[in-house]
Amino acid sequence: MKFLAGVALLAPLAAAVWPIPSHYSHGDKTLWISDDVAITYQQPLHFQQYSLRASASAADAGSGSQRIVQKAVSRAYETIFKQSYVPWRFNHRFSDFEPKTTNKKFIQSIALVQNKTDAAGVLKPKEGQFDEGYTLVVGPAGKVTITSASSLGLARGLTTFTQLFFAHSKGGAYTKLAPVRIDDSPKFAHRGLNMDVSRNFFPIDNILRTIDALAYNKMNRLHLHITDAQSWPLEIPALPELSAKGAYGPGMTYSPADVQRIYTYGALLGVAVVMEIDQPGHTSSIWHSHPELIAAWNEQPNWITYAAEPPSGTLKLNSPAVYKFLSTLYKDLLPRLSPLTSYFHTGGDEIKYAAYKLDDTVKSDDPAVLQPLLQKYIDTVHKHVRDAGLTPVVWEEIVLTYNLTVGKDVLIQAWQEPTSAVAITNMGHKALVGDYNFWYLDCGHGQWLDFEPGVASMKYYPYQDYCAPLKSWRQVYSYDPLTSIAKDKQHLIVGGEVHMWAEQTDALNFDGKAWPRAAAAAEVLWSGAKDPATGQNRSQIEASPRLADMRERLVARGVAAEPVQMPYCQQDGSQCLYLASFDDA
Amino acid sequence: MKFLAGVALLAPLAAAVWPIPSHYSHGDKTLWISDDVAITYQQPLHFQQYSLRASASAADAGSGSQRIVQKAVSRAYETIFKQSYVPWRFNHRFSDFEPKTTNKKFIQSIALVQNKTDAAGVLKPKEGQFDEGYTLVVGPAGKVTITSASSLGLARGLTTFTQLFFAHSKGGAYTKLAPVRIDDSPKFAHRGLNMDVSRNFFPIDNILRTIDALAYNKMNRLHLHITDAQSWPLEIPALPELSAKGAYGPGMTYSPADVQRIYTYGALLGVAVVMEIDQPGHTSSIWHSHPELIAAWNEQPNWITYAAEPPSGTLKLNSPAVYKFLSTLYKDLLPRLSPLTSYFHTGGDEIKYAAYKLDDTVKSDDPAVLQPLLQKYIDTVHKHVRDAGLTPVVWEEIVLTYNLTVGKDVLIQAWQEPTSAVAITNMGHKALVGDYNFWYLDCGHGQWLDFEPGVASMKYYPYQDYCAPLKSWRQVYSYDPLTSIAKDKQHLIVGGEVHMWAEQTDALNFDGKAWPRAAAAAEVLWSGAKDPATGQNRSQIEASPRLADMRERLVARGVAAEPVQMPYCQQDGSQCLYLASFDDA
Repeated sequence: MKFLAGVALLAPLAAAVWPIPSHYSHGDKTLWISDDVAITYQQPLHFQQYSLRASASAADAGSGSQRIVQKAVSRAYETIFKQSYVPWRFNHRFSDFEPKTTNKKFIQSIALVQNKTDAAGVLKPKEGQFDEGYTLVVGPAGKVTITSASSLGLARGLTTFTQLFFAHSKGGAYTKLAPVRIDDSPKFAHRGLNMDVSRNFFPIDNILRTIDALAYNKMNRLHLHITDAQSWPLEIPALPELSAKGAYGPGMTYSPADVQRIYTYGALLGVAVVMEIDQPGHTSSIWHSHPELIAAWNEQPNWITYAAEPPSGTLKLNSPAVYKFLSTLYKDLLPRLSPLTSYFHTGGDEIKYAAYKLDDTVKSDDPAVLQPLLQKYIDTVHKHVRDAGLTPVVWEEIVLTYNLTVGKDVLIQAWQEPTSAVAITNMGHKALVGDYNFWYLDCGHGQWLDFEPGVASMKYYPYQDYCAPLKSWRQVYSYDPLTSIAKDKQHLIVGGEVHMWAEQTDALNFDGKAWPRAAAAAEVLWSGAKDPATGQNRSQIEASPRLADMRERLVARGVAAEPVQMPYCQQDGSQCLYLASFDDA
Repeated sequence: MKFLAGVALLAPLAAAVWPIPSHYSHGDKTLWISDDVAITYQQPLHFQQYSLRASASAADAGSGSQRIVQKAVSRAYETIFKQSYVPWRFNHRFSDFEPKTTNKKFIQSIALVQNKTDAAGVLKPKEGQFDEGYTLVVGPAGKVTITSASSLGLARGLTTFTQLFFAHSKGGAYTKLAPVRIDDSPKFAHRGLNMDVSRNFFPIDNILRTIDALAYNKMNRLHLHITDAQSWPLEIPALPELSAKGAYGPGMTYSPADVQRIYTYGALLGVAVVMEIDQPGHTSSIWHSHPELIAAWNEQPNWITYAAEPPSGTLKLNSPAVYKFLSTLYKDLLPRLSPLTSYFHTGGDEIKYAAYKLDDTVKSDDPAVLQPLLQKYIDTVHKHVRDAGLTPVVWEEIVLTYNLTVGKDVLIQAWQEPTSAVAITNMGHKALVGDYNFWYLDCGHGQWLDFEPGVASMKYYPYQDYCAPLKSWRQVYSYDPLTSIAKDKQHLIVGGEVHMWAEQTDALNFDGKAWPRAAAAAEVLWSGAKDPATGQNRSQIEASPRLADMRERLVARGVAAEPVQMPYCQQDGSQCLYLASFDDA
């Protein structure tokens, strides 16, 4: 009981930072911060000086490194002074928890020190290419230094810095944690969220807000699942008919300017966008403009024989017209993406071979017939991707189900049981994890299919989806990407992604379904799933109030994240505990 | 297969009305509506005339009946002209689904005919006291007549009327369903939602928006669970310390003016507010101002022995000071409520007898000792309620667990297995249903308790809550309040409520968790759970697009309801079916 009593007595916001840093010590002194505090950005070749406030309106100019730091300073200003909150939820009710507003001591200066010049390509980082680690020191007299080997690391450090501060009900912002020393670096290089913007359309603002929330959780990838069977919102100037007929409706498309805006916004916040065009299945929305390219289109009512979801349909597998289409598509699209990302996702999940029996260029569902055709298909697509200077990402089925050969540069995205990641890494491939039993954030809301009467009332009641139950933050948080991976293969686990499929998700419920649960994954990916002190899963009791704080911070920046606990649980420390001893009684 | 093909070919919005009326026929002609169409309200003693638009700003004056009809007309105006939407989701993509804007035919007139004068008390209706049924006729030439025996029925009819219309992308509003004839009346008299505003604080706007959404679904009760162990937001002028110390914080209280506003808003929309002060358990928030009245306050860490949730605490059971407190409380509160409601909920759930062992006025957990004390307690409280002219509502434990005697006027609210409602009605009591296995809308989001390390990773993984899984709309919709109730007891099932407890619900996620699932319950309560044609559960295939339409209507009026299906499923009829035959293959 001693340990728990100790936890409950901790000031709940003592830690305050999410994800938890590798090494972290702090005091309990109050320091205020003024919005005109001087900031210097020193790197081996350059020196810049501005005030926190002035940077917010500073022009977006300079090298990639300078632009990244400028953006980070601007977001820090907005976070501390415009998107902060009074932490009433985390203090005893009606208590006098705020510091006095007399005799304020202020942060004196903020020095951003980059001790290495960024290599080229900091706006399109490859996994692990730039050191995102940083050291943050808040001295007792208010001198702040953030040190990193890269501009991206400085940005991560500034993000941490903002989380030390709260709004005061009488105005101004303060930390109660001075002095501070943090040494921090990420456990995994690829920390992402997969956002399906095809099954439902999401306005640009929703995507930008998501990127901002990812960056605030030190995530660094937005996987944009931008086309699927249900709609094709992506405008391709060389193939304008694709979105003109395949989008859900007028105005529900992403123009080249929209794509540029999303990628640039992400690159400056250290969140690389990984666009996916899923293929050769999941492409039936192409039928609306190019029916000649699609086999097994919208077979009804027996869609289930031909696809994982209605409408069925796949690009034909042995068709010169399809190859010509792919060439036109990628020659238009990829050169526009490659200045701001190093990755492109070519999909490849959930093919049903039966569809190719209806494909007039194949007329077979025999794997022996299909395998070489699929190999030629993926080789062709990956050549387009590499010709544009990009690295392909694929779903696990490419190597695990269809037995295709892909380059060792390719990131293989596992989404099924832990055995998938084991198999991928045992083949010597790099893997991204995100087991649907843990990290599918859309699960558990019930089936979206309408059940025929009779069937409904019997076999499928209560109409759970295949990946039920809903994954609570505790379950998301309990997932270790290294589960079952042999020590000598762990370096191949590049990172992972949480997933938000959009069968039942649109702009109105995206935020609440994504946050704060994606933040739980962010801590696993940045800090590791295990508590270094115990080697066991990290403590929910320690994490819970910190996650609740992150939730409030997300709400303050416009993200409608769900609550973690009722205020009572948090107002006097962690008061809502389930003890082992309860079961002995 | 024939039946299903037929369903899929139906225009998905043919029905358009939620909940489904008892009898409904319509054509396929287009009629537009102008916002200056003349409306007459004819009742036996009065005649009123105004335009749809003008009524929106009309003064809130006249008798209760007049005020109700005036409010209904005003909401109809806003719904049709300000809170409508273009139904792109429900029509083939890029199709020309909207009527031509030339040669428009218009609704000519709207006659509201009340063929009986409302008895006194229409602003505080008892269950079944006023006929909410109505007949709605839209003639081929655009003459509209809504007939009812009460002003509340006219309001329900006007609500239905608005659901015939959509916004046109070029402006204006139209129906494609003329002519129409609807004869409609509710299956159950009490159709409610229980909103917990104690565990989290909800701003007034959230409550008013919920009332509006309830009325739009022909629900007629808002159960306001306004105090609990975690906070006491209700201001009581005679006991100002209660909320001054027991609320979550400054500004998180409901003043008498707030309460008046909520009740009035509800009464005019035909949604009676049923406030609950849960007792004698669930009262530990009183401790902050009156520690002398509370036993077993916040026992930690073993709260689980003394209460269903932390913080533990109960009003003392044999204390003159408690009785004095109750008298002061109810003499202040109840006379302010009784002009606008006929009900008051006195709670009574989840007592743990162990708490009374720590009660210095009792010092026993022996049911034989506690039963007479509880009987005296409930008798006293119910006398206060009846003295104010109100009917008590209680949780099922009062009669099923503590074996107390209450009057036959009391509504007993069941929340557990169907056996509860059976037992209550077998005792000859009136029952409200809302089995937590079906109608607890907060369930399935995972535990809100923090598990001690070790326990967590073993026994309780994956940290589901007691009432998991999340209840999808299909599950909510499958619940029949009459399940297991003998024919001769069915008249005692007065109705039911869906529940939204607030351990993990606050203003940011309330709407999405409540809607459209509460609407699924609304149809069960208004229309009945069974399809009259088959005697079986109603078809998901028929309901799904109609519910999706209701979702869009709720979004248009500012309620952030969750999506039902992706647009693909709805754009060419019901395309996302799971057939019985799938399992034969």
